[in-house]
Amino acid sequence: MNFISDNAYGAAPEIIAAVAAANAGTAASYGDDEWTAKLRTQMARLFEHEVAVYPVIAGTAANALALATLSPPHGAIMCHADAHIVADECGAPEFFSHGARLIPIEGRDCKLTPDAIETMLKRFQAGIVHHIQPTVISITQATELGTSYRLEEIAAIGALARKHGLKLHMDGARFANALAYLGCAPAEATWRAGVDVLSFGATKNGALGAEAVVFFNSGDVRDFEYRRKKAGHLPSKMRFISAQLVSYLEDGRWLATAARANALAMKLANGFAKIPGAELAHPVEANAVFVRLPDKTVARLRAAGAIFYDWTPPEQGRTLIRLVCSFATPEDDIARLLEVARAG
Amino acid sequence: MNFISDNAYGAAPEIIAAVAAANAGTAASYGDDEWTAKLRTQMARLFEHEVAVYPVIAGTAANALALATLSPPHGAIMCHADAHIVADECGAPEFFSHGARLIPIEGRDCKLTPDAIETMLKRFQAGIVHHIQPTVISITQATELGTSYRLEEIAAIGALARKHGLKLHMDGARFANALAYLGCAPAEATWRAGVDVLSFGATKNGALGAEAVVFFNSGDVRDFEYRRKKAGHLPSKMRFISAQLVSYLEDGRWLATAARANALAMKLANGFAKIPGAELAHPVEANAVFVRLPDKTVARLRAAGAIFYDWTPPEQGRTLIRLVCSFATPEDDIARLLEVARAG
Amino acid sequence: MNFISDNAYGAAPEIIAAVAAANAGTAASYGDDEWTAKLRTQMARLFEHEVAVYPVIAGTAANALALATLSPPHGAIMCHADAHIVADECGAPEFFSHGARLIPIEGRDCKLTPDAIETMLKRFQAGIVHHIQPTVISITQATELGTSYRLEEIAAIGALARKHGLKLHMDGARFANALAYLGCAPAEATWRAGVDVLSFGATKNGALGAEAVVFFNSGDVRDFEYRRKKAGHLPSKMRFISAQLVSYLEDGRWLATAARANALAMKLANGFAKIPGAELAHPVEANAVFVRLPDKTVARLRAAGAIFYDWTPPEQGRTLIRLVCSFATPEDDIARLLEVARAG
Amino acid sequence: MNFISDNAYGAAPEIIAAVAAANAGTAASYGDDEWTAKLRTQMARLFEHEVAVYPVIAGTAANALALATLSPPHGAIMCHADAHIVADECGAPEFFSHGARLIPIEGRDCKLTPDAIETMLKRFQAGIVHHIQPTVISITQATELGTSYRLEEIAAIGALARKHGLKLHMDGARFANALAYLGCAPAEATWRAGVDVLSFGATKNGALGAEAVVFFNSGDVRDFEYRRKKAGHLPSKMRFISAQLVSYLEDGRWLATAARANALAMKLANGFAKIPGAELAHPVEANAVFVRLPDKTVARLRAAGAIFYDWTPPEQGRTLIRLVCSFATPEDDIARLLEVARAG
Repeated sequence: MNFISDNAYGAAPEIIAAVAAANAGTAASYGDDEWTAKLRTQMARLFEHEVAVYPVIAGTAANALALATLSPPHGAIMCHADAHIVADECGAPEFFSHGARLIPIEGRDCKLTPDAIETMLKRFQAGIVHHIQPTVISITQATELGTSYRLEEIAAIGALARKHGLKLHMDGARFANALAYLGCAPAEATWRAGVDVLSFGATKNGALGAEAVVFFNSGDVRDFEYRRKKAGHLPSKMRFISAQLVSYLEDGRWLATAARANALAMKLANGFAKIPGAELAHPVEANAVFVRLPDKTVARLRAAGAIFYDWTPPEQGRTLIRLVCSFATPEDDIARLLEVARAG
Repeated sequence: MNFISDNAYGAAPEIIAAVAAANAGTAASYGDDEWTAKLRTQMARLFEHEVAVYPVIAGTAANALALATLSPPHGAIMCHADAHIVADECGAPEFFSHGARLIPIEGRDCKLTPDAIETMLKRFQAGIVHHIQPTVISITQATELGTSYRLEEIAAIGALARKHGLKLHMDGARFANALAYLGCAPAEATWRAGVDVLSFGATKNGALGAEAVVFFNSGDVRDFEYRRKKAGHLPSKMRFISAQLVSYLEDGRWLATAARANALAMKLANGFAKIPGAELAHPVEANAVFVRLPDKTVARLRAAGAIFYDWTPPEQGRTLIRLVCSFATPEDDIARLLEVARAG
Repeated sequence: MNFISDNAYGAAPEIIAAVAAANAGTAASYGDDEWTAKLRTQMARLFEHEVAVYPVIAGTAANALALATLSPPHGAIMCHADAHIVADECGAPEFFSHGARLIPIEGRDCKLTPDAIETMLKRFQAGIVHHIQPTVISITQATELGTSYRLEEIAAIGALARKHGLKLHMDGARFANALAYLGCAPAEATWRAGVDVLSFGATKNGALGAEAVVFFNSGDVRDFEYRRKKAGHLPSKMRFISAQLVSYLEDGRWLATAARANALAMKLANGFAKIPGAELAHPVEANAVFVRLPDKTVARLRAAGAIFYDWTPPEQGRTLIRLVCSFATPEDDIARLLEVARAG
Repeated sequence: MNFISDNAYGAAPEIIAAVAAANAGTAASYGDDEWTAKLRTQMARLFEHEVAVYPVIAGTAANALALATLSPPHGAIMCHADAHIVADECGAPEFFSHGARLIPIEGRDCKLTPDAIETMLKRFQAGIVHHIQPTVISITQATELGTSYRLEEIAAIGALARKHGLKLHMDGARFANALAYLGCAPAEATWRAGVDVLSFGATKNGALGAEAVVFFNSGDVRDFEYRRKKAGHLPSKMRFISAQLVSYLEDGRWLATAARANALAMKLANGFAKIPGAELAHPVEANAVFVRLPDKTVARLRAAGAIFYDWTPPEQGRTLIRLVCSFATPEDDIARLLEVARAG
């Protein structure tokens, strides 16, 4: 019963097969191969828009490269206080951007709101050299707390960004989960709502290790390619990264795996909803469940072999835990976990 | 007939199979998995020494992370003028080290010599704040021109490094090829000769994309782990990188693939040696052949479908070309290339 | 009536005379001169402790050099949300430290408390590579809101720092004002209370442009001297910076000028205390007065020629303004300002 | 007899008087003062061109800020192998530019030539992400070996820069000395010859500590102002830096002091020319003399109290020494030095 993260599970068999298939013959290095070319075509079709697509091997790299390209060293990047970029990347955005500052902003259910951003923006005066200069807003979709921004929520932030001349970045480590939840077109959830750059995740949802930075405006690419190379993120045998993403997008695989993970999370949520003493901390709108449980229930789950994170330390006899479902989580584990939880 | 680089070829089938096998079940993320643990054991045995081993996905990342860990921003890294780190990594060492300087030094057959390093060192005064401070010597084994340092050559540089309090880094993108050529133990070619840190390459010799930074002294590791994370080089599903390296080392696979590539290069070299007008520019001591050919021969090879780099622009009717053999280069291609070359 | 900042006034005549006197003859460059040597002796005596002293020309340089020396790129620096380092230095600490993160913490009267720091520290797990690692606490003395930490307040933070293995930095841009207010020995307010490094300000209190980074533990100096040089903060004719500081400390000049500025601020505060509708926002414990006034009073002051900053935008008919007194502010300006304020 | 450097001497009395005069009353901080405004006017008139002028306190800061503004982190800056920026600034350009690379190029009398630059440029392929990208050529005027580029030499490099889309920076730490030697207009020696940015030195020639970055094209300024602030090089009491420069330029003071220093150097050179065994290593075209002397002569000079640098270690009984004359070097010291040198 492994609910610790969606990255604890392996890759979709089709994706492994795609990597094996890509092994035939020689290929041009550093992304000049046919898989990477195909990925570009797929992405343009998927997003109904011209895109610049750059595969990388990890979400932290995707985020940091994207943000550093958009923000000068004297820039400021607004994000939620629980955003992965500020909480879990050991300062990668600062490293890649040579010192741009992340501005953490609080917000319910891990979401930024235009009001909260607007309030924070007042602290910085444009053109005043003593102040760092806001340049980017970054939102995570689905969020780190398992919620998903609605299209109108994104659009409102997108409008704010444009009003202030800021760029809008979306950390889409779980973009597929959000999309599966929202049931909308990728274009709607991104550039049509004002997103300029997307970190398009695949690793958590079935790839071995593959993400893509997707620029919706070619003018934003600037010196991205030099940055990627300097950072050691231009692998010579790029075809094996791109082949994963190509397979991921084929036949709607990415949405199917995400939908399955979401459905499992929803089952968990529905199960907990019926358990007295269990309290869902956030709406379940992707593949993660945050539930507050009596400490003895938490202990019982662990004793039964369940693996998961305590999200916050125990407080008044209860602990908030995080349960993440993967495309590959066994259905039985859901039932068993709920059974153990109920057993008290 | 693809001789453009050893990274134009795919991966060894056994390595792909190992990746597929690693897909079973869940695993701890970020390197706390059994494959990474096994790799550590393998490496310690291989090098007959305690080691700290960190898998990464690309050689540029391995080199830059290693060098940045060893050298402060005010440090200087001595290397050959044709070293990959100074010629082909777009400033990655500078980026990772926050500005340490690469000091290119000339030397025959792409090798540094103690004398040449000693001469360069005289330009910098230890403890004088106006001068950057030499901290690291980096050598490439096998070199970028297809030669291999002899053990005594490495040891002489190692002794110089110790004398001056410098660290010795080895870029081993083609370490297997050098070792297959030298026929010595990995320990002899590294820490016993004074090497402190090794970028252990596998990608060019059969992996999908896997290298390892190998520290021979735990004291040198310092803040490496934070640097790796900040740089986006700590992939969540690390098992798939480590599994490649585990398979690479198993059953002497890495030396077998390297030996095959070397043997093909030697065949090429022997063939060219018999062709009037062909002149080998460097001893062939790994898997690359640098040969000066009449321009019309070069054109004929290209017309026949051979792919390779002109290493220097045409001069006086002849051009120096580079031909790299891979573990997977078809034997027939060697014969055919030589045939076309002879046909003039 | 210039109350905009203490840096709007010039230098003490004695300090200018000292610079002129230092002009005689030749001197060793880059700090190997007799004035810099004398400054070291003075500082050691002043602080009753061995010190490493480095003159620089600006407070931002002093702070950023000190913090970067103490904190690695993956480090975190805790400071008050209104601290100069986070609010007014355009990311200098991030630049000098290659990306360390400033963690702004709220606190009454611009002061950090051990509790607030302790709470924030819980967000970071020591040794977890996904998290930046707290390394430094920075406090400002006197604070940016004109208050001064009491000795026991500093000591409590110092104790917390030691408990967590953190370093304690003090931004002493207005250290003299705090000391004049507290009436204690420099040693008590610094190393005896746990301060590791002090940015010792002189510019705002009578120098042309001179500050000093003062390390109380030689082990903390590390590569400071290289950092200073690399940052362009090792002027060749250092004697002219050091001569300012030497004169500043001579005959208790620094405390006399600070005491005068503090006394003027206290007069202002006492005056405002008697004006209906005027509300002091913070205790006046240095040379700045933060007072909330009716907007029409603010307008009247400006019409009368007073220069000062609105600290926050007008709200409900009143505005918080900042009035800073300098050692050179004319006594008459105080009386006149209060008169105009009362006139309503 | 101090010939160690022109920065061993103090400031011109008129410049000290100007600083004292600038002390009257209050002034806007951070460069919004009347002295800085006046400096802009003076510089525009001096250069017969619109300029953006930024005073800083040290030449290393001027150079590093200028170069970092012109060159991205993946850029390369071509300079002479003996240039101050590569030999004596501890990596400041790399620090400020976040890792751009300095490319040292050899050349007679410390001068770059278009041919040498052109040859070096061939090593880098434009648009190839594996290669750092040349962005700037930096020349020093007068050079570090006491020679001065002729106008046509500068123009030839300027033309090459434009041909390749590179910017041309001039390190003018001794710009006055070169100009006094060449006897041409400042405009001719700079923007008319293709110089884009000038580090305009004053410290070595009579200021306390004042230089200026002078941009000849407003488009090149980019984010310079943020960079300056982040680097701690925007002192609050800027008026005292600007006042030095204003006085420096007034009444042709800067050219008069430089002409005097040059004349003393020429006297030295003429004197040595008549001493058997003394050999001038470079033409004397500014205020420095590089002369090879028998070791016993060198010892005799030192015994007589002369202070100077050995430029290279003794070789075959002779040593190359550097003798720098300042505007304030006593005339008698020249005669005495020559007398001691002759005495052998």
